[in-house]
Amino acid sequence: MAEEEKPETGFVKEIRKQSQDFPGWYNDVVRKAQLADNSPVAGTMIIRPYGYALWENIRDPLDGLIKETGHENWYFPALIPLSFLQKEKDHVAGFEPEFQLVTKGGGKDLEEPLVLRPTSETMIATVLRDYIQSYRDLPVLTNQWNNIFRWELRTRFFLRTREFLWQEGHTFHETAAEAEEEVAKMLDCYRRIAEEWCAIPVLTGRKSETEKFAGAQYSTAIEGMMMDGKALQMGTSHYFGENFTRAYDLTYTGRTNERQYPHSTSWGMSTRMVGAVVMAHGDDSGLQLPPRIAPVQVVIIPIFRGDAERSQIETALQQVRADLEDIRVKVDWRDERPGFKFNEWELKGVPLRIEIGPRDLAKGEATVVRRLNRAKQTIPLGELGVAIPALLEEVQGALFRRAREFREGHTVRVDSLDALVRFFETSIGFAVTAWCGREDDERTVKKRTTATTRVILSSRRPEQPCAVCGRPATVEVAWGIAY
Amino acid sequence: MAEEEKPETGFVKEIRKQSQDFPGWYNDVVRKAQLADNSPVAGTMIIRPYGYALWENIRDPLDGLIKETGHENWYFPALIPLSFLQKEKDHVAGFEPEFQLVTKGGGKDLEEPLVLRPTSETMIATVLRDYIQSYRDLPVLTNQWNNIFRWELRTRFFLRTREFLWQEGHTFHETAAEAEEEVAKMLDCYRRIAEEWCAIPVLTGRKSETEKFAGAQYSTAIEGMMMDGKALQMGTSHYFGENFTRAYDLTYTGRTNERQYPHSTSWGMSTRMVGAVVMAHGDDSGLQLPPRIAPVQVVIIPIFRGDAERSQIETALQQVRADLEDIRVKVDWRDERPGFKFNEWELKGVPLRIEIGPRDLAKGEATVVRRLNRAKQTIPLGELGVAIPALLEEVQGALFRRAREFREGHTVRVDSLDALVRFFETSIGFAVTAWCGREDDERTVKKRTTATTRVILSSRRPEQPCAVCGRPATVEVAWGIAY
Repeated sequence: MAEEEKPETGFVKEIRKQSQDFPGWYNDVVRKAQLADNSPVAGTMIIRPYGYALWENIRDPLDGLIKETGHENWYFPALIPLSFLQKEKDHVAGFEPEFQLVTKGGGKDLEEPLVLRPTSETMIATVLRDYIQSYRDLPVLTNQWNNIFRWELRTRFFLRTREFLWQEGHTFHETAAEAEEEVAKMLDCYRRIAEEWCAIPVLTGRKSETEKFAGAQYSTAIEGMMMDGKALQMGTSHYFGENFTRAYDLTYTGRTNERQYPHSTSWGMSTRMVGAVVMAHGDDSGLQLPPRIAPVQVVIIPIFRGDAERSQIETALQQVRADLEDIRVKVDWRDERPGFKFNEWELKGVPLRIEIGPRDLAKGEATVVRRLNRAKQTIPLGELGVAIPALLEEVQGALFRRAREFREGHTVRVDSLDALVRFFETSIGFAVTAWCGREDDERTVKKRTTATTRVILSSRRPEQPCAVCGRPATVEVAWGIAY
Repeated sequence: MAEEEKPETGFVKEIRKQSQDFPGWYNDVVRKAQLADNSPVAGTMIIRPYGYALWENIRDPLDGLIKETGHENWYFPALIPLSFLQKEKDHVAGFEPEFQLVTKGGGKDLEEPLVLRPTSETMIATVLRDYIQSYRDLPVLTNQWNNIFRWELRTRFFLRTREFLWQEGHTFHETAAEAEEEVAKMLDCYRRIAEEWCAIPVLTGRKSETEKFAGAQYSTAIEGMMMDGKALQMGTSHYFGENFTRAYDLTYTGRTNERQYPHSTSWGMSTRMVGAVVMAHGDDSGLQLPPRIAPVQVVIIPIFRGDAERSQIETALQQVRADLEDIRVKVDWRDERPGFKFNEWELKGVPLRIEIGPRDLAKGEATVVRRLNRAKQTIPLGELGVAIPALLEEVQGALFRRAREFREGHTVRVDSLDALVRFFETSIGFAVTAWCGREDDERTVKKRTTATTRVILSSRRPEQPCAVCGRPATVEVAWGIAY
């Protein structure tokens, strides 16, 4: 196996450099790799087939985990009467600026405006009042896959748009302990999707009071580091206690025959994950997709001149394709130069490329090139059926390790406000400190660095004092510049 | 194998009789089998887990067929600027009464109202202008799974609600012939989903001018017969010619270097299919689900007294479950009488029930009861792994044949307006006639019978004259009372 660094040219040049203009690079990659495109409707995007297929490959294993953990898919209406949304005061305060209102239907003004769901806690609490009567009806473990509408002002492909796709789980439990266990369990499902499928290592933990979901007692999240060092919240899981069930008067008869309020949770993961995959693995050549979620895992580029060579390769490929029947393979027969095709499939982040030409055939082998570092090797044709799945797994692991090393290389531990400020003056990454938990400190740090608390890593009382204000610390927290 | 008719009682009694009050029966079955429920938002419904699982089992094979035929899933925004929708005049005339308008976002009045998509032809034609430049870009074969909003006044579970789920395919082609082939191909996919998965035989063909989609050159549909004899349109596939591409100025450079308009199509199938399955197979005991789409294919009812018997059965079931690992099996261990469970699973339409008690175990066998006719047989435990999949296939076929015989028994051929009127005075079903194609005839028949043309069965010129007006006939058409 020989490695080589091959500087290829082509339309990839049209992509801005990741190191020089990360947001420009991101936009170019999303559009040129055909994940998504601008929409004629302000603030929204078009998800193109390659992007949608990537989303399906994230969505399907997540749906599997959600079902394996005992949840069932429901579908609740997208339009929520304004009055439903106004019952939980923190919740409405948090979401009202983002409401999009339907005021006319069937040619008439509606008596009450309908809000396009910004999230469905209020609808589901209203509906489930009819289903939850007794402790025997609990837990109720719901999930739904749908579209969400939030009136965002600054939008960015996949990360923040006025409409996006997600799943939202909503559960109701007899005890706080069960609900809290649920919150942790679903956060762990998100961690697994991020780490095991998307190859993105994540920090997990609670959010601060400032950063929690509107209406939650506490929120937890998974946070990944992108290639620009910024933090991306990739999934959240919230504990509501009785906040919503009290606000919606959702009660049940408990074991001691008293009316009680269930403890509820919600959790969501969205198409934002597609953006995470782009920003956590991409490079100046474009996308780099983890094999488990790549719509095309292997692209085969036949290299030939004339019909005789072509038909020779076609014949050989019949067996190769049969040997790779469980792999998502594409053969690129287009009438273009091989170099053009190499560039395009690198841009699209396909993990492995197989090149087969007459010289390879004569030796009974193929050239296999990894997207990662363009590592090249020759493999006998008869061994591809075994070698390719193993290589895909190897690349999956290598991408994860690379992302974890990147994160570790961009994470520091600091013990003073000055050190925190100095870190964010010269770097972007995670800074871990002891913290007392006061919102004042978050304001101070945000003002001086734009960093915010991302997740609380440990609630074991640290030995050091709070890095920001010197008061006794209660937790360890990771600070970062958030998307 | 012994058959017996077992008149069981229980809460199934709460369901109105199919023969006495079909709409009441339908509503009761949908709610009591927990497919769907009333929503607190007028005109919408809640899809409950059992109904959603049924939808997933229809959606997934349809998604498979759509991909196998070369289409790709996209996602386009749900909110469409009003001006986009107004360019194709027939289309806007057809849909405008059903518009739901978003007029406020982010606390401000919008400059232009946004319409919640009643269908996406107008959005997709607008977007694809940027993607279709040359004949080399064609065909473009898109599909999307989403939610649709139409301001309906008379709503009914699954059949007609202000929001529903569906897929909508939209394709663009170089030639009329290719587009027309596409229309036929996708109609055939719908026929296969209806017949092979949902066990509902369908008539296929073109709609009349009166019944076609707003903006289409012609529409085709699959039409099934429900157990009340009424017709249900279960999927449609439309040919637009250049109507939409001209209205949206979507052009490409053709092979002769001239600007041309692609020929476009659209086709859709929705959650209405769940309602079709209820109404085509259900009976006074409730739902009756075709095995291929049943969320639970086999329910096992353990019959025991005391822990010793229970643990005996548990042990035996381990092997049974292993033998049935590819089957969707549920074991009902709830602390309820067996008769209660039998009723409930019949109501939910589970195709096969396995009863296992100590006497069965002693003989090394189980009692297997089909939902269809309650046919009962005993099967050795060791043979269940082979017998159950075969029985499920048998039931799938039997349901289809039963539905086809029902339809044939409720279809007549008539050759005069009088005979047509007499038929619909005493029966509901399909009446097939020769027809000249004039809209006047449709008005006459509708006025006298409420029946409409459902599909044109053959465009071979009939020998008889038009049954309605006596003019020379051009087609054979099926009339029916439509949902």
